[in-house]
Amino acid sequence: MRNLKLTLAYDGSDYHGWQVQPDRPTVQGTIVHTLREITREKIWLHAAARTDAGVHALGQVANFKTRMKIPPENLQRALNSLLPPTIRVGAVEEVPPHFHARWHAQAKTYRYRLLRAPICPPFLWRQVYHYHYPLDEPAMARAAPLFEGEHDFSSFGTWDADEKEKSKVRAVFSSRVQPDPEKQELVYTVRGRSFLRYMVRKLVGTLVNIGKGSLRPEDIPRLFEARDRSQAGPTAPPEGLYLVSVEYPRP
Amino acid sequence: MRNLKLTLAYDGSDYHGWQVQPDRPTVQGTIVHTLREITREKIWLHAAARTDAGVHALGQVANFKTRMKIPPENLQRALNSLLPPTIRVGAVEEVPPHFHARWHAQAKTYRYRLLRAPICPPFLWRQVYHYHYPLDEPAMARAAPLFEGEHDFSSFGTWDADEKEKSKVRAVFSSRVQPDPEKQELVYTVRGRSFLRYMVRKLVGTLVNIGKGSLRPEDIPRLFEARDRSQAGPTAPPEGLYLVSVEYPRP
Repeated sequence: MRNLKLTLAYDGSDYHGWQVQPDRPTVQGTIVHTLREITREKIWLHAAARTDAGVHALGQVANFKTRMKIPPENLQRALNSLLPPTIRVGAVEEVPPHFHARWHAQAKTYRYRLLRAPICPPFLWRQVYHYHYPLDEPAMARAAPLFEGEHDFSSFGTWDADEKEKSKVRAVFSSRVQPDPEKQELVYTVRGRSFLRYMVRKLVGTLVNIGKGSLRPEDIPRLFEARDRSQAGPTAPPEGLYLVSVEYPRP
Repeated sequence: MRNLKLTLAYDGSDYHGWQVQPDRPTVQGTIVHTLREITREKIWLHAAARTDAGVHALGQVANFKTRMKIPPENLQRALNSLLPPTIRVGAVEEVPPHFHARWHAQAKTYRYRLLRAPICPPFLWRQVYHYHYPLDEPAMARAAPLFEGEHDFSSFGTWDADEKEKSKVRAVFSSRVQPDPEKQELVYTVRGRSFLRYMVRKLVGTLVNIGKGSLRPEDIPRLFEARDRSQAGPTAPPEGLYLVSVEYPRP
């Protein structure tokens, strides 16, 4: 069996997230369907991260095993001609048999785009969170790095019942808010080993509350301490969020 | 009656063009419906240009008359909150009673975006014409200015039966092809007094044929002479085309 790694970009707007769901279009479901058409095999496709409904990807990574001997470039071309234009395969590579897109990911980078312009261009409404009310952007920029380090992120995530007992400690390597004046955007970039479900959007919701003045940067240690979701900010909408890249150890 | 001028941006992807059609979503139909909701009046909305299905606008201009005394800024806010996010009102201004968005337009500028990257990002497929095969871009850049001036554009347009006898002479003020290396795009920009239906897309189709080598820049005078649509290039797809701006005489 060959093990193939896909690097994927997608517009999440029309999908109910990554993970296969019955009777709903999902990114995984769409790619698996196309891979089965090409290979005529049963395919198991593993992604680095299960992005939620409406969330986009610039560099999602997934892998699957196949007996098919197709050269990687030809598979890439076949996928891009058969997949809908909202999913693009940027690369196909053969990887060692043990490689697993999820278990071997060492870091993931997410970006969140807040559009600060008074009017959201008609081409961008599904690709940014349009928030044009006043925000104390310097306070947000001061607060963002306070999420860096190893913390219990219980206040900033959600999980299934069967994961209740699992550790909610996560390592965030960097967490920054930066304005992009040319695009009139405020951009949040976070890089970490792994994230709880909704974690990035809850960090953004908390930063927005800091920008509005309903929370202060100094409240963040207390929020970590509380391990209580009701005290953090709300979950920011999915359309601003992008999975930018996934890092793996060098082979 | 007050005469109000709207400056509009829209993503044409989901609309069957500007002009009202029964049972099909159009940009004009959508805006008229919303203006009737706001004013409770019968509304006649005149646009500078009737963009075709799938064509976008950054600065379309339209005007309508109303008895309503709403301040322009409030009408703009009301429209932007009631219209779908694919249509945005950039400005509302009160103009003299005789102003007509179509009859008084002195120049219109269109832009056409050809994406030259090997893979079309999933966010751009309805906003550019993805053409990644080889093109002789310098030949296209040499050919584009040959459309400048006053010419009979019969070979580069279409028209309704009742317009058959009307002049097909149009004045093109500037016509340029320029690469945008950062976006990996080739951009065609044309500014003229007015245009035949499909004219910009047929100019682009002709330029692409020149890029492919099936026509030469030197053929353009012959195409003007021929007044025969079958000899020019095909109509380029609508998704790459933008109505950028409309110019009026200073009041």
